[in-house]
Amino acid sequence: MKHCSMEASDCLGITRRQALSVIGKTAGAAAMYQAMAYLGFAAQSPFKESERFERLRGAPKGVSVLVLGAGIAGMTAAYELRNAGYSVKILEYRPKAGGRCWTIRGGDVYTELGGATQKCEFDRGLYINPGPWRIPYNHFAILSYCKSFGVSLEPFIQVNYNAFVHSTRAYGGKPQRYRKVQADFQGHIAELLSKSVNQGALNKTLNKADREALTSALRSWGALREDGSYGKSIESAERRGFEVWPGGGLMPLMAASNDILEGKELIKSRFWRRIITGQFHEFQSSIFQPVGGMDMIAQAFAKQVDDLIKFNARVTSIAQDENGVSVSYENSARPGSALTERADYCVCTIPLSILSQIPLNVSAPMREAIRAVPYEASVKIGLQFKRRFWEDEHIYGGISYTDAPISLIGYPNTDYGRQGKGVLLGAYIWGRNAYEFTSMTPAERIEAALKYGALIHPQYRDHFENGIAVGWHRVPWTNGCHGIWTDETREKRYKDLCQIDGRIALAGEHASYIPAWLEGAVLSAQDAIKRLHANIVAKN
Amino acid sequence: MKHCSMEASDCLGITRRQALSVIGKTAGAAAMYQAMAYLGFAAQSPFKESERFERLRGAPKGVSVLVLGAGIAGMTAAYELRNAGYSVKILEYRPKAGGRCWTIRGGDVYTELGGATQKCEFDRGLYINPGPWRIPYNHFAILSYCKSFGVSLEPFIQVNYNAFVHSTRAYGGKPQRYRKVQADFQGHIAELLSKSVNQGALNKTLNKADREALTSALRSWGALREDGSYGKSIESAERRGFEVWPGGGLMPLMAASNDILEGKELIKSRFWRRIITGQFHEFQSSIFQPVGGMDMIAQAFAKQVDDLIKFNARVTSIAQDENGVSVSYENSARPGSALTERADYCVCTIPLSILSQIPLNVSAPMREAIRAVPYEASVKIGLQFKRRFWEDEHIYGGISYTDAPISLIGYPNTDYGRQGKGVLLGAYIWGRNAYEFTSMTPAERIEAALKYGALIHPQYRDHFENGIAVGWHRVPWTNGCHGIWTDETREKRYKDLCQIDGRIALAGEHASYIPAWLEGAVLSAQDAIKRLHANIVAKN
Repeated sequence: MKHCSMEASDCLGITRRQALSVIGKTAGAAAMYQAMAYLGFAAQSPFKESERFERLRGAPKGVSVLVLGAGIAGMTAAYELRNAGYSVKILEYRPKAGGRCWTIRGGDVYTELGGATQKCEFDRGLYINPGPWRIPYNHFAILSYCKSFGVSLEPFIQVNYNAFVHSTRAYGGKPQRYRKVQADFQGHIAELLSKSVNQGALNKTLNKADREALTSALRSWGALREDGSYGKSIESAERRGFEVWPGGGLMPLMAASNDILEGKELIKSRFWRRIITGQFHEFQSSIFQPVGGMDMIAQAFAKQVDDLIKFNARVTSIAQDENGVSVSYENSARPGSALTERADYCVCTIPLSILSQIPLNVSAPMREAIRAVPYEASVKIGLQFKRRFWEDEHIYGGISYTDAPISLIGYPNTDYGRQGKGVLLGAYIWGRNAYEFTSMTPAERIEAALKYGALIHPQYRDHFENGIAVGWHRVPWTNGCHGIWTDETREKRYKDLCQIDGRIALAGEHASYIPAWLEGAVLSAQDAIKRLHANIVAKN
Repeated sequence: MKHCSMEASDCLGITRRQALSVIGKTAGAAAMYQAMAYLGFAAQSPFKESERFERLRGAPKGVSVLVLGAGIAGMTAAYELRNAGYSVKILEYRPKAGGRCWTIRGGDVYTELGGATQKCEFDRGLYINPGPWRIPYNHFAILSYCKSFGVSLEPFIQVNYNAFVHSTRAYGGKPQRYRKVQADFQGHIAELLSKSVNQGALNKTLNKADREALTSALRSWGALREDGSYGKSIESAERRGFEVWPGGGLMPLMAASNDILEGKELIKSRFWRRIITGQFHEFQSSIFQPVGGMDMIAQAFAKQVDDLIKFNARVTSIAQDENGVSVSYENSARPGSALTERADYCVCTIPLSILSQIPLNVSAPMREAIRAVPYEASVKIGLQFKRRFWEDEHIYGGISYTDAPISLIGYPNTDYGRQGKGVLLGAYIWGRNAYEFTSMTPAERIEAALKYGALIHPQYRDHFENGIAVGWHRVPWTNGCHGIWTDETREKRYKDLCQIDGRIALAGEHASYIPAWLEGAVLSAQDAIKRLHANIVAKN
């Protein structure tokens, strides 16, 4: 659901709610708090944690830490550990830093598992973010680094009232404006409740004054007519839009239109699922994107720790002993090269999808946890068009939703009103559909995105120029988009994954309750190194 | 209300709804359409109008038009008329163009009626817009000029879930987060309706399947618990925020907080009025501001028509005769200077508050219309602070609402995360409170804004540096913020105001159904010159 940075309830990820409800149901709230106490959890929030992130201090002299992976988790760990006085190195598989915090621009070449190579042909200044693409206001830790490192942020438009909600199975497949869905759903709810109150349904719950206050509130909130009904009126048109918009001089008088979305059909269409997305804390306004692409964050982190990173280093084994950790790797440009790095401790941020394939001598519970978490197959497709035709119909940024496999169309949240070309996020697919798209060639994926997108924007075919498609199960360095936790694996394995095992600590979005988000990676790293540091200090 | 760019239901302006309902009630819808037909209204929308604004063409050779006022209406008229081939001049009272499309920056000096002079001491790059400050996605005409003239736009954050809703009379005066107000109101509504359905209140309206679909929708939409109740839960916390936010590693487990805003009190608080603001079409996302201040639009228009403008020209009389229009004016730098400009026709965009004081020979109905429209007294106050302290608590842009006289606090929608100083819109006042503030000295207004603002942000006093306060009734060139139309004046006077009178046409936000917005000014001008042009062509 919302927590895994996806926006459909058919997302395979497990919700935190479900995870906690398992504990809650089996043992009740008191037991849950006992469990927290048992685990040594202090009564402090990650909010305060990150706001006041206490820089680690006082590393014992000469202690070294090897960080595996120069994604956001790895670079967070390296940055903070070096500041604390540790001797730090990072091994990174790719020739550049950032991991899934990744932006594809014109000229970039990308080869996926299976060998298909795509060269991005976007014009200068245009891009897509195949991984994370937004930062909520309450992702305090990553925002704090953005501020420290001078990353410029601009608003991400999550909710666009003039974008579309579309279903192949409702309203004859005709896309509906978000503003109509929102206004009409709310209006119908207000009308039904107003009716119920008038019929005395809540006489036991509410006294007369409360009932009057409620129906009066419902009239305003739901844009109801004087008689408590919802329908065609200037009041509802002020929410859902006008047939004839208010004008100047002696232009035609404004007029409401007659195309109210009937209540029962609206409920059946499940379009209301789209209007709650922006109400979840991770999608609430204000929400941001870095100016110029998500990897501006990666670049800003890399600027801090660039000197610590050994690039093109494919880790082949991780072995700890009484005195330290030895990591074998090969230079990916020279397959077969057998290199080694040794340090006193290791923070490993390699995705579990990859780590599960690498020899690693940790305890059985951690090994089992590493193997227990499958990875999401999500697919993103960027499409370049000759013109920003969506702005002709006054869609500026934001998202249109559909039940077609592309699941959404994301409009660029920048350069509004700019003449010339533009890039849409033409698909953001997960679950079953993502497997299907991953099995296609990149060209087939793009073709499918065009086919489905044209259901919403018939202009697609006329204006399309080129595209790029990333299926995360075919990304060589992650084999997936993010870890998928279920109720069961959270309960059985999460703690084992996060506990420090001898000299090795794991970190990354997979070791957090905020999977798929940068914030999960950062908080996971901060928590892991805090505990590792405490261990080291205690030993020395 | 919404339509007059204000956000409180105590706004003095009359709604379009009310205006139309007068016609609707007295004569019914059919009569309304008849009235429209009688007035010669075509069945076309201003949307299409502006989208396809047909450039005027074929001005008869040598015909001249004098435009009064170089605000957005005047410059729109001048730009289009010259393009059509007319000989155009503009007289403007001020030494610069833009009218109420105005931005105050550090170094600007402003003297109001009564003689008080303020010098703005904002740091470089900081500003306030005393007049309009945002552009909705559906203000098609002004957006079209912004695009043509290359004005860069950035998102205006209208809804900020992490900002505050505050009332001196609710919750002991404690500001509440928007996200909690929003989630809890919606949750309570969902719970009440769910309860009503379960009690059979809607059995006649909805069959069993519909009722089940409804309660299931309500559970998701309202974040209800399994039993249909709303309250403390992880589901509601995902909307209203967590006591302990989701974390990484072995950070404390997330937890919902117990501070649900009780339903009856929430309805009584009328806080729900704040959560519908962003649903009105004029405030719906996406909504914009020009990068660098609202007067970037004024400057872009001025760049097109600069050569036509005579600045510092205070119009003292407007007289039409059989052959043309003579306008007397004085150079405001040399009071008493008696200058004249003559043209074949005149488009007058002078605010009615000023125009009603100038001799003008038009028909009695137009004169009466000019005198019939009072002007809003709204007040805006900009406050510079040493630090952007509101971003410490993760309020990035947007608006906090209060029932205190300041009515709202607007946070800067740009430079997120920037170190250093920042300017808040510390007050946006209208109605009775605006009169009171206008009667104060600028320093007293600022002091009052600090006093009320500190109810929401106690940091005000520590961080305040300087401020500037504009009361529109004291603005020498408008004597008010915008025209206030009532049901009665709309019905009796609007048509008389907009009809072309001989050789004179009026235009401006006051001659539109979109008062106080740039769009009203533009559409009014476009409509006036279209009709004027048609008259001229017919005569020649």
